Amino acid sequence: MSKRDFLSTADLTRSELDDLLDLATRAKGKRPGQVLAGKTLGLLFFQPSLRTRVSFEVAMVQLGGHCINLSSNDLYELEPQEQAVMDGPAEEHVKDAARTLSRYVDALGIRSAARSGTWEHDRQELLLRSYAKYASVPVINLETSFEHPCQALADVMTMRENLVSLKGRKLTLLWCNHPEPKSLGPTHSILQVAARMGMNVTLAHPLGFEVDGEVLERSKTLAGDAGGSLQVSNDMASACRGSEVLYARSWGCTKYWDDAEREAMVKRSLQSWRVDEQLMASTNNALLMHPLPVRRNVAATDAVLDGPRSVIYEQAANRTHVQKALLMQLLK
Amino acid sequence: MSKRDFLSTADLTRSELDDLLDLATRAKGKRPGQVLAGKTLGLLFFQPSLRTRVSFEVAMVQLGGHCINLSSNDLYELEPQEQAVMDGPAEEHVKDAARTLSRYVDALGIRSAARSGTWEHDRQELLLRSYAKYASVPVINLETSFEHPCQALADVMTMRENLVSLKGRKLTLLWCNHPEPKSLGPTHSILQVAARMGMNVTLAHPLGFEVDGEVLERSKTLAGDAGGSLQVSNDMASACRGSEVLYARSWGCTKYWDDAEREAMVKRSLQSWRVDEQLMASTNNALLMHPLPVRRNVAATDAVLDGPRSVIYEQAANRTHVQKALLMQLLK
Amino acid sequence: MSKRDFLSTADLTRSELDDLLDLATRAKGKRPGQVLAGKTLGLLFFQPSLRTRVSFEVAMVQLGGHCINLSSNDLYELEPQEQAVMDGPAEEHVKDAARTLSRYVDALGIRSAARSGTWEHDRQELLLRSYAKYASVPVINLETSFEHPCQALADVMTMRENLVSLKGRKLTLLWCNHPEPKSLGPTHSILQVAARMGMNVTLAHPLGFEVDGEVLERSKTLAGDAGGSLQVSNDMASACRGSEVLYARSWGCTKYWDDAEREAMVKRSLQSWRVDEQLMASTNNALLMHPLPVRRNVAATDAVLDGPRSVIYEQAANRTHVQKALLMQLLK
Repeated sequence: MSKRDFLSTADLTRSELDDLLDLATRAKGKRPGQVLAGKTLGLLFFQPSLRTRVSFEVAMVQLGGHCINLSSNDLYELEPQEQAVMDGPAEEHVKDAARTLSRYVDALGIRSAARSGTWEHDRQELLLRSYAKYASVPVINLETSFEHPCQALADVMTMRENLVSLKGRKLTLLWCNHPEPKSLGPTHSILQVAARMGMNVTLAHPLGFEVDGEVLERSKTLAGDAGGSLQVSNDMASACRGSEVLYARSWGCTKYWDDAEREAMVKRSLQSWRVDEQLMASTNNALLMHPLPVRRNVAATDAVLDGPRSVIYEQAANRTHVQKALLMQLLK
Repeated sequence: MSKRDFLSTADLTRSELDDLLDLATRAKGKRPGQVLAGKTLGLLFFQPSLRTRVSFEVAMVQLGGHCINLSSNDLYELEPQEQAVMDGPAEEHVKDAARTLSRYVDALGIRSAARSGTWEHDRQELLLRSYAKYASVPVINLETSFEHPCQALADVMTMRENLVSLKGRKLTLLWCNHPEPKSLGPTHSILQVAARMGMNVTLAHPLGFEVDGEVLERSKTLAGDAGGSLQVSNDMASACRGSEVLYARSWGCTKYWDDAEREAMVKRSLQSWRVDEQLMASTNNALLMHPLPVRRNVAATDAVLDGPRSVIYEQAANRTHVQKALLMQLLK
Repeated sequence: MSKRDFLSTADLTRSELDDLLDLATRAKGKRPGQVLAGKTLGLLFFQPSLRTRVSFEVAMVQLGGHCINLSSNDLYELEPQEQAVMDGPAEEHVKDAARTLSRYVDALGIRSAARSGTWEHDRQELLLRSYAKYASVPVINLETSFEHPCQALADVMTMRENLVSLKGRKLTLLWCNHPEPKSLGPTHSILQVAARMGMNVTLAHPLGFEVDGEVLERSKTLAGDAGGSLQVSNDMASACRGSEVLYARSWGCTKYWDDAEREAMVKRSLQSWRVDEQLMASTNNALLMHPLPVRRNVAATDAVLDGPRSVIYEQAANRTHVQKALLMQLLK
């Protein structure tokens, strides 16, 4: 039997997704016991992490398993290119690291969301896909520039808890300002999952902050197939009007992906892309979501982040529960 | 019921302190079993650590629990200021980190002892207090510039083991030389605990190395209330004469807190503030204590650190035992 | 009873070595259970590590124990010199770190393979030997510039699995090219173990890449005593002809140990020291071994590393099994 990876929300069928969310809900209510006793999950972080790191480690511990954590500080540089003549700085090929680690651990999680070239380069998730190709154990995407499927699972679990049914509900995915260029991972993942849930999604962002074209087209198809819709807006106010879920997050400009200074310059005129009480008041009593970390009073004000409709900590808490369900499914 | 933090030795009443030390002594004699099975302690280190890190992890493991370790290498910068407009380098607010982590772990330990401004700034323990304010789980001080209460618990346990009763015993807290500017945390914490134990404390340091004024006044009151005394001396020789416990450690100059070069210049003439055999001979067969790490042959000579009256490793070993007792009390 | 260290393959008698390999083989076939429950192993890495770190942590976890991992990122600088006046950058003496850690953990592993001076300096393994001297718990060498005994145990286990008996078998230890100067640890360790197994060893390297003279002499004696032989060759082709095991790895030039640029210059003319299919074809259907990480298409081609005679991942996997056996013997 072949191994099963979780690199993208697309790796789960709709019914598998529903099963996973049901399992997560049961795991939240009652600890499932030591079902992963003796199992180890290797986590490789090539960027800092708080939620992903801690929520996975807690999930494994509560299931009786163990995490082995490696960060880029513990490791040398790794080479993802096939057939490379390795006379540069990379000390080991991903092929060898993946095959070796597969002999030690039962699953591998990889975070690799750094900008390392053009968007055309980074959208290929070269490092993650290379690990998945060569590892003989399941590989989990802990965030790339292109997808962050574990976050989307927690997001959709949080929406289900609060709205009960998601079909036909109005979700606004809202770009907001941020001093740094950010990954498109969380945006792409929640966009595709929400589409598959049949939500009526409005993707709102300033001109120049378009998401990946293929992801957008695929999401439109998924939404249509599920009885929902997807529209793009460049007008924040109209995009939020009547919204039932306002999901805020910044993401980077794919056109200037390798030019952070130019992106920063463009963003100087976009400081109004920030969620505040006035914007919230225009919605249909929307839930406020954000995957964290959030730049307070830049992306959204303290008043709305700490307000009665904010479910940002529920999203974070649900990371543990969906990941428990995921680990049980991948490692059972 | 509200959560209980351990930020300062003042967070324990005298009878709670005695109970904790009794529990630590029992835990040292006999392993208490898996009383914290399924519990996780998150440790955040913003400075290097050997004793604190390993003694806490061993304590949790021996009680059946688990530590999740994050260091500043794994994390981005965090913002402690209320209502900050987060357009600078800090990627997340402490408020959000603390609230998120509270959903994952059962207690949090924070080490944040870096110099980040004037003494008036650092004595407020802004980062630690911010975590304590926003976390819904117990927060433990793993050392700030102002207090290191876990070290003081181990120190007082070590003195009790060696002297049996502490009331009226003569303790000299002796400043000693060091090439680097150091935190006042261990000094402030042992000073206050020793005062509460009714010891006769002499705080000895060169002019210019006064401890925090409020801490000194509070300690005098505590000593008086407990039937002990506290006096300050700037004369090393007379301060050590007849001492039953000589507790050596360097600490920084609060007046030049943000000017390490000036402190270093002042210390050039203070090389005689070093514990050697001659000084030890002037005491009443004193125990030699130091919280480690120690600069050998600068703060104290090899002969006395490795001598028959040195209990420096007992202090270190007792960290595990007092912390086991603390964790049992906070997490039970 | 005195503690037992594992600093060198020489720390095991031949019969202890055989016992350990037998135990490792049994541990590979069947998990030995929670025989190290409640035990902790402290791992200190002063250089990056993938295999050693993960294979030790997995070994401890599968035996019911726990690893506490410290890297140079978590720690300050440590002083190994006796009687040092510690007014420099080192914050703590190895003596104090080792004695403190001995009170917390049941065994210590140390990796310290950085170049820090001349070969005469680094061959003394000062940091490792200082830990071993002062720790009261077993100390394990996780690789120095001089030895890497855990790797050699895995190597000899892998050879035994594939060749059944080793006595009289022809092993070629082949230097190969590498853009960086490398440790001699793995080479020294497998050289001595293979000699003790009575193999007929050919050590092949370009002029200037002689291994340590004492190690070479000792290995010749060991080989002779065990009914084998050891010869040195500077001709790659003849050294590999008829070989039954081709063990490839780069190592540094001891003469220019503190001059990386000069070593790099010398190596520019040594690019033909690379294992390829033509070289493999000249052997007696040799196993291809390499301790990893390997510079693909510099030290050896993809074709041979991924070819049918490569056992590089078996070597890596066996790290866990020999280390389980080692930990059981040291900690039982």
